Amino acid sequence: MSCDFLQLARTPVQQLSPYVPGKPVEELARELDLNPADIIKLASNENPLGPSPKVLEAIEKALPELTRYPDGNGFALKQALAAHYGLDMAQITLGNGSNDVLELVAKAWLEPGHNAVFSQYAFAVYPIATLAAGAECREVPAKDHGHDLDAMLAAIDADTRVVFIANPNNPTGTWFDISALEAFLDAVPEQVLVVLDEAYIEYASGSELPNGVKYLSRYPNLIVSRTFSKAYGLAALRVGYALSSPRVAEVLNRVRQPFNVNSLALAAACAALEDEDYLFRSRLANDQGMEQLETGLEALGLEWIASKGNFIAVRFGPDAAAINQALLEKGVIVRPVAGYGMPEYLRVSIGTHEENARFLGVLKQVLVNDA
Amino acid sequence: MSCDFLQLARTPVQQLSPYVPGKPVEELARELDLNPADIIKLASNENPLGPSPKVLEAIEKALPELTRYPDGNGFALKQALAAHYGLDMAQITLGNGSNDVLELVAKAWLEPGHNAVFSQYAFAVYPIATLAAGAECREVPAKDHGHDLDAMLAAIDADTRVVFIANPNNPTGTWFDISALEAFLDAVPEQVLVVLDEAYIEYASGSELPNGVKYLSRYPNLIVSRTFSKAYGLAALRVGYALSSPRVAEVLNRVRQPFNVNSLALAAACAALEDEDYLFRSRLANDQGMEQLETGLEALGLEWIASKGNFIAVRFGPDAAAINQALLEKGVIVRPVAGYGMPEYLRVSIGTHEENARFLGVLKQVLVNDA
Repeated sequence: MSCDFLQLARTPVQQLSPYVPGKPVEELARELDLNPADIIKLASNENPLGPSPKVLEAIEKALPELTRYPDGNGFALKQALAAHYGLDMAQITLGNGSNDVLELVAKAWLEPGHNAVFSQYAFAVYPIATLAAGAECREVPAKDHGHDLDAMLAAIDADTRVVFIANPNNPTGTWFDISALEAFLDAVPEQVLVVLDEAYIEYASGSELPNGVKYLSRYPNLIVSRTFSKAYGLAALRVGYALSSPRVAEVLNRVRQPFNVNSLALAAACAALEDEDYLFRSRLANDQGMEQLETGLEALGLEWIASKGNFIAVRFGPDAAAINQALLEKGVIVRPVAGYGMPEYLRVSIGTHEENARFLGVLKQVLVNDA
Repeated sequence: MSCDFLQLARTPVQQLSPYVPGKPVEELARELDLNPADIIKLASNENPLGPSPKVLEAIEKALPELTRYPDGNGFALKQALAAHYGLDMAQITLGNGSNDVLELVAKAWLEPGHNAVFSQYAFAVYPIATLAAGAECREVPAKDHGHDLDAMLAAIDADTRVVFIANPNNPTGTWFDISALEAFLDAVPEQVLVVLDEAYIEYASGSELPNGVKYLSRYPNLIVSRTFSKAYGLAALRVGYALSSPRVAEVLNRVRQPFNVNSLALAAACAALEDEDYLFRSRLANDQGMEQLETGLEALGLEWIASKGNFIAVRFGPDAAAINQALLEKGVIVRPVAGYGMPEYLRVSIGTHEENARFLGVLKQVLVNDA
């Protein structure tokens, strides 16, 4: 009779439900005995363009050093990011994906007795990181599926250490504009950290969305979180980063693992940051794919939440889970968002033109059978 | 006047001294204006053989999927490890290096009021992870630079949740044998987790050192930590793993980041595990290099701690820091271990035959100048 090591774990760990990622193609292939080549995955907001040739070249060049530890300070990437944004290197914290950045914030500033404020329908890692730190999750009801920033302000109290906001928000694609962000940042107490998660911001540039980087000098409590996983196409490699005041970055760097970002990821991110052509094509393909999906969904009489991301949350009503299952059986992976409190929706990532067409075609079949 | 976000951080974070890694070649080149090609680094216990061709091939094959998230469950690597060790996949937790594994243990089971027991002169991440969790570090004096397992047993009390032991130990290279481990595991209370850190075990195989994997079925409180960073030559990619009872693995997997190990690392580790020839050559080169260094050090009249790892701690007395600086200026990076409470020693990783010869030659010059 051995001990129960779950009962011996920290209380928050006992209550934790791990993050549920999009189903990998290989996993569906194993489960349903399908050919992986016949499966399309529109479930994880991945870049459909495939890797940038410049990134591949940079990885190639880094391969001889595979037996060496990464540069724990990420000098070259921080230097490149600092130049790119006109910031100081001391304002940057690198993360093993922006998931790591979010966890570093929780690890540094959250503990039992504290709370973190975030919106209903926000990224699942905000509550996971908050709960794992033993702090209270203060989830604020959304307004039209987006952040209700006024209600979020009202939810802040003396025990609030962190507010997580996302622009655009995942999984809804909703956003807020410049004046809304400025009013919010002006009103948040100066001792409360605001994590502005801009994982999808590159898809929304040139729009009315604010660029969080511009506000760093004015708000020392602001942390802008960004990633190379989406528009830069490096999801496989896990590179995210936080931009903040140097003092906040010093704390974040204290709690990160010394080699949290690996060597090939560092090299790839440097190359990706320089590859403006890839970024341009990512945005263009996304704009075109979004239009293609919206047109197709409209033709099918479906509703969706307007999105500035590289994904779209489509309303299927009470049949959403059954429709998801039917899509899986036909080799199309999209993302159920019942875990986000949206059981009537499925989130669909923008794929290539062919993938979007395949999705719409299969969806049409499924809906006809369902009717 | 802005808030001090270090003062607002969790108390343990305010007291944390981050891990100090070996100095990267590029950093020394920048600091002393040296040519990187003229620098040798024997500071991070890295594999001097360079990458395995089979690993490079596996990475090449994985590159087209760079825009996709990694398989968060690491199915293929867990399957390969399970087959390799004759274990169940449910007994495996993958980590972003074994550093990640050590932090996961602390995150799952340590909090204020608890303590973790480990030895003096043990790996710096044990106290860092323990302190970051807000738990007490119970450091037990070493015996002849190695673990005093009886004293460690005596240090365990009702608040002890974890004991960290390393075999061989870093940075000393010391080890314990089969009967010592068995007696220790028999005596540790069943509710206390024993983390047996075997990061360097592959260099010591065929010796009197126990293989931790053999004890998993007998001790449900045992966690064996291993890495691909050393004998397998993948330090750049960050892949480590914990082997344990399924119940313990379930808890560890709850607290890890969903994509903690990236896709190229997963692919590379699968290939490395299969490449028995590379492992054989790693061991052989290490045995030969160790002999080369010991012969050279003896000729210089120096003392060292006998080591079963891929490194050797050499005693330089009160001049160790000055000698380290003189070596740096001549482009030779070794590892000061004053931070480990060993100010009179420098730790030297086993390099290639040429690197070892260069180190010994430069050291001779430095010692002559110092005399």
